[in-house]
Amino acid sequence: MDENKVLNPGHGIPDIVVGRLPHYLRALQHMALEGRRLTSSQELSERLGISAAQIRKDLSLFGEFGKQGTGYQIDFLLDQLRQILKVNQVWDIVLVGAGDIGSAIARYQGFENRGFRVTMIFDSNPAIIGNQVGAFIVQDSAGIVASIQSAQIRIAMLAVPAANAQEVSDQLVEAGIKAILNYAPISLNVPEDVHVQYIDPVIHLQRMTYYLD
Amino acid sequence: MDENKVLNPGHGIPDIVVGRLPHYLRALQHMALEGRRLTSSQELSERLGISAAQIRKDLSLFGEFGKQGTGYQIDFLLDQLRQILKVNQVWDIVLVGAGDIGSAIARYQGFENRGFRVTMIFDSNPAIIGNQVGAFIVQDSAGIVASIQSAQIRIAMLAVPAANAQEVSDQLVEAGIKAILNYAPISLNVPEDVHVQYIDPVIHLQRMTYYLD
Repeated sequence: MDENKVLNPGHGIPDIVVGRLPHYLRALQHMALEGRRLTSSQELSERLGISAAQIRKDLSLFGEFGKQGTGYQIDFLLDQLRQILKVNQVWDIVLVGAGDIGSAIARYQGFENRGFRVTMIFDSNPAIIGNQVGAFIVQDSAGIVASIQSAQIRIAMLAVPAANAQEVSDQLVEAGIKAILNYAPISLNVPEDVHVQYIDPVIHLQRMTYYLD
Repeated sequence: MDENKVLNPGHGIPDIVVGRLPHYLRALQHMALEGRRLTSSQELSERLGISAAQIRKDLSLFGEFGKQGTGYQIDFLLDQLRQILKVNQVWDIVLVGAGDIGSAIARYQGFENRGFRVTMIFDSNPAIIGNQVGAFIVQDSAGIVASIQSAQIRIAMLAVPAANAQEVSDQLVEAGIKAILNYAPISLNVPEDVHVQYIDPVIHLQRMTYYLD
């Protein structure tokens, strides 16, 4: 799991810090939508539940973004964070699995303006192939490696049953995918240069029940 | 965000450790399903991409679960982790939002045997109220506080648009909810005794694009 690396040797920035940057970016985007121009580590702290000192320390690893007394210019900090996270471009995403979760992802409007767009969706179920899901026609997984290679896509979202996830992951890696967001509730084995993040609601729920009486 | 607290003062176990326990539990459940009886920190390490030393250290905070040379008994460690995470019981969940994501959650089979079951689903859209989604009839959000209180539910999953999320969250807190898994792409303000975890695919994707060339 990426979240457990302490340091990413190629970059020198702790992965735990990298993991907080998208939260800063999202909060700043909300502020910009509210028409705001300036913010402070204190305000970000209140919105995010991360200490103001931590926020200042995290951001200082990348440069001098704020001025003492005046805080951060929202537009400037947004630009900088988009560059750091490389979402000052739009990344194409291949989605595998057109069941309930895959279909919800295909119709999700929340990728817009945040650096991503789904461009293809695949499934291996003959009953689903050819169906329209959101703006997409579900394609046959048999052609997935060739399609990804020809479109040079680097990022995949995986919404297949746990029993198929490793096999599909192997195909994605073969096709040149370097980042996988995995919704299947199982850990994937991938080469070291492929990044995997996991979305499993039960993992998040169990992390909270620990604290309940 | 829970993930950024360094220590949880009421328990003394770092939250980052608590966050890894559900991953250990999930891996052990897969091994048990495979009919396995013994495992080692080394094998868990390979499955999870967490160092064996870290796994041993994490588990040692809760007791003596393994023996040097023989490793961990899977059934025993499963029992212990379920107790620690309090999923040796089944928690009822209220689901708010019966759109694409909420419907996918309502139909999700992956909660079974992992400590949770969805028992109610609410929406405020008159066109959706009364519909059947999975095994549930969508109820009118107007009755949400009374229903939660009467069923004494402590955990909610929030799958409403970002613009409504804070308002719904306030109702959930009023009703006695102590843990919220939020799918809306916005940070929630909640009292200190309410836990929030976030599922926002873009946050995970942006964390990976940082590392892509």
